[in-house]
Amino acid sequence: MSRSAPRRTENHKINKDLFVLTYGALVAQLCKDYEKDEDVNKYLDKMGYGIGTRLIEDFLARSCVRRCHSYSEITDIIAQVAFKMYLGITPSVACRNSSRNEFSLILDKNPLVEFVEELPAGRSSLCYCNLLCGIIRGALEMVHLTADVTFLQDRLKGDSVTEIGITFLKKLEEKRYRRKK
Amino acid sequence: MSRSAPRRTENHKINKDLFVLTYGALVAQLCKDYEKDEDVNKYLDKMGYGIGTRLIEDFLARSCVRRCHSYSEITDIIAQVAFKMYLGITPSVACRNSSRNEFSLILDKNPLVEFVEELPAGRSSLCYCNLLCGIIRGALEMVHLTADVTFLQDRLKGDSVTEIGITFLKKLEEKRYRRKK
Repeated sequence: MSRSAPRRTENHKINKDLFVLTYGALVAQLCKDYEKDEDVNKYLDKMGYGIGTRLIEDFLARSCVRRCHSYSEITDIIAQVAFKMYLGITPSVACRNSSRNEFSLILDKNPLVEFVEELPAGRSSLCYCNLLCGIIRGALEMVHLTADVTFLQDRLKGDSVTEIGITFLKKLEEKRYRRKK
Repeated sequence: MSRSAPRRTENHKINKDLFVLTYGALVAQLCKDYEKDEDVNKYLDKMGYGIGTRLIEDFLARSCVRRCHSYSEITDIIAQVAFKMYLGITPSVACRNSSRNEFSLILDKNPLVEFVEELPAGRSSLCYCNLLCGIIRGALEMVHLTADVTFLQDRLKGDSVTEIGITFLKKLEEKRYRRKK
């Protein structure tokens, strides 16, 4: 994968507030359904996974990205192309280990929490935006990349930034050797 | 209310597919939670109402609409400004009665159902997009207009178009007489 101009952008944008408020309604519903924060988090991740597996096709068509040769390149695409395309923001990327398979997306601004001042009462372990982790995980899996995706920091929990950690679980080289020639 | 150019549009758009799929996840969750279609419909309407009451402030700020003098004008604003702004579509408007308080918004295209081929099995009475009715109802209530908003036709149910009915329940004149001078 590598970047190029989007193929079609017409009629593909909607107002952000409608999405942000609808997402809030979804989280509120899950909080009503599941007593434990970890169950809500799990469910948001699961829903996001389903969304990611469907969104990837549109993403590949619209972004025209080509095959990447490193996890670093893939993470840059997620931050600079996917986040920009879907949420209108560009997180910064940091590599977290020397084997270069652990990365962080650092979000200075998180549109999903624009109407959220704080976590709901008694919900201190809620990962409010966990849908995003699931979406990334689901989308990556559809291009045969297995990854753990979790929130490492969250401004809603008092952290100074919001940070999503992506740990790629397979050696990228292994896959490339198996490519058809 | 009357139309004028939007005040701020920057950073206010996101990709539609993300919203449409997230909305689908919300509806699926409610179908899991409530056995009866009418309960899902009611809940979507209620959630939409809450969203509408919050969205109206942003809408009034961004659209700079001014006071309307008829229900027909109000319905035109909903179709041509609000739907355009939030969903990127412009439904056509039809008046349904001679007292001019019943209107239809006719949607040739409904972005919310783009990924939905048919209603889920056993869910033939589901108003999949009922959130929209709630949003319109909630937003109108915040500008002191009481209305019934329901789906009259739905392509997902085999109808030839999707039609949202709006019935305004108070005489507009009554309110105007009560305005401060």
